[in-house]
Amino acid sequence: MSSAASDVRLGENVSVHETANLYGCIVGDNTRVGAYVEIQRGAVVGRNCKISSHTFICEGVVIEEEVFVGHNVTFVNDMYPRATKNGALRGRDDWVCIPTRVRRGASLGSSATILAGVTIGEGAMVGAGSVVTRDVPPWTIVVGNPAHVLRSLPAGDAS
Amino acid sequence: MSSAASDVRLGENVSVHETANLYGCIVGDNTRVGAYVEIQRGAVVGRNCKISSHTFICEGVVIEEEVFVGHNVTFVNDMYPRATKNGALRGRDDWVCIPTRVRRGASLGSSATILAGVTIGEGAMVGAGSVVTRDVPPWTIVVGNPAHVLRSLPAGDAS
Amino acid sequence: MSSAASDVRLGENVSVHETANLYGCIVGDNTRVGAYVEIQRGAVVGRNCKISSHTFICEGVVIEEEVFVGHNVTFVNDMYPRATKNGALRGRDDWVCIPTRVRRGASLGSSATILAGVTIGEGAMVGAGSVVTRDVPPWTIVVGNPAHVLRSLPAGDAS
Repeated sequence: MSSAASDVRLGENVSVHETANLYGCIVGDNTRVGAYVEIQRGAVVGRNCKISSHTFICEGVVIEEEVFVGHNVTFVNDMYPRATKNGALRGRDDWVCIPTRVRRGASLGSSATILAGVTIGEGAMVGAGSVVTRDVPPWTIVVGNPAHVLRSLPAGDAS
Repeated sequence: MSSAASDVRLGENVSVHETANLYGCIVGDNTRVGAYVEIQRGAVVGRNCKISSHTFICEGVVIEEEVFVGHNVTFVNDMYPRATKNGALRGRDDWVCIPTRVRRGASLGSSATILAGVTIGEGAMVGAGSVVTRDVPPWTIVVGNPAHVLRSLPAGDAS
Repeated sequence: MSSAASDVRLGENVSVHETANLYGCIVGDNTRVGAYVEIQRGAVVGRNCKISSHTFICEGVVIEEEVFVGHNVTFVNDMYPRATKNGALRGRDDWVCIPTRVRRGASLGSSATILAGVTIGEGAMVGAGSVVTRDVPPWTIVVGNPAHVLRSLPAGDAS
């Protein structure tokens, strides 16, 4: 199995596990991608990130540099997905991709689900198992389903 | 790695990702199955469905036609699972499989968990990250853990 | 793809799916490991366990004997993960691994998330989709996000 299709743009010193499935995406320098990770066409992952095993990053997601993405994290780019339209499978022109952004130095805990259209602020932390339904302010910790702010973090804590 | 064992019954024009793991199941015409999907013996998936990456469909699950199953969706068929009985691993005769059904045109959001024994009604939508513990009425949206009805949808909205 | 690296110590009669990714860990006699499971260096899984597909077991986790681990279960060993330190990727010396223990005969429902540092008591059951943030007493069922005790179980019910 090929871990990165030929249309993937990898920076220098990128590590991609042999079981990963990357196609049409961009991954920045030094970033590490774990087992069973899928990164779709059009997704962008910055430099110095860790993308942990079992995570799914869809089209429309931009992850800036120095971001920690835990295991089993799932992004979403469609609020009302349907399989078909007029009885036939939907194709690429039958839906609108809603963009999501994870800003520099943020951390997404394992098993977090990130809904379409949100922005995770710089240095923010999403607790493990949380479902993020709206923007996360920078330098805060959010937890729960739906995720709410638990407390603030000192700015610059990430690195 | 073989993506579909020889005892799988695939309809016409079915697409199964090379990393998927299907055995003893039935998949209907035109349905697409993504990366790292496992579909177990005895499960049935209808025509014109999308089964997205990282999803697990167990024995006892019937998915009707035109259903959208998001990424990382997990079905359950045993309410009180145990590894062993009298100190030895349980086998196929040591538990009862509880059936689950997803009706025509429903959509299951990514990272949803569907407990054993529920029915997801026609055209219903399960929000991303939800844990479904009881039946979902047709043409409703449910969200949360445990999932509750958020609002109704216009019938026939699916296609 | 190699399912178990040469530094894995497997007991007798262990079954590991060909898509699994095990390295530097110990797995006891008769235990079964499903598809797309990752078990990291330093993790220990006891005898007569079932580790179901899509599950992630990290360094610092000890699972005793006769434990059922459902599908898509995720363990955590770091409460405040960050990708980088002073702008460079963190390495093995830049964090502290927090240990987690699952005691004999416990069952972890599918899609459960187990936070760092907790102990799951003997014979306890974690409901599907739960997020466990603190210790689970023996012979109890916990559910929800965060998980809370739903009710007690008769001791010795597991086997």
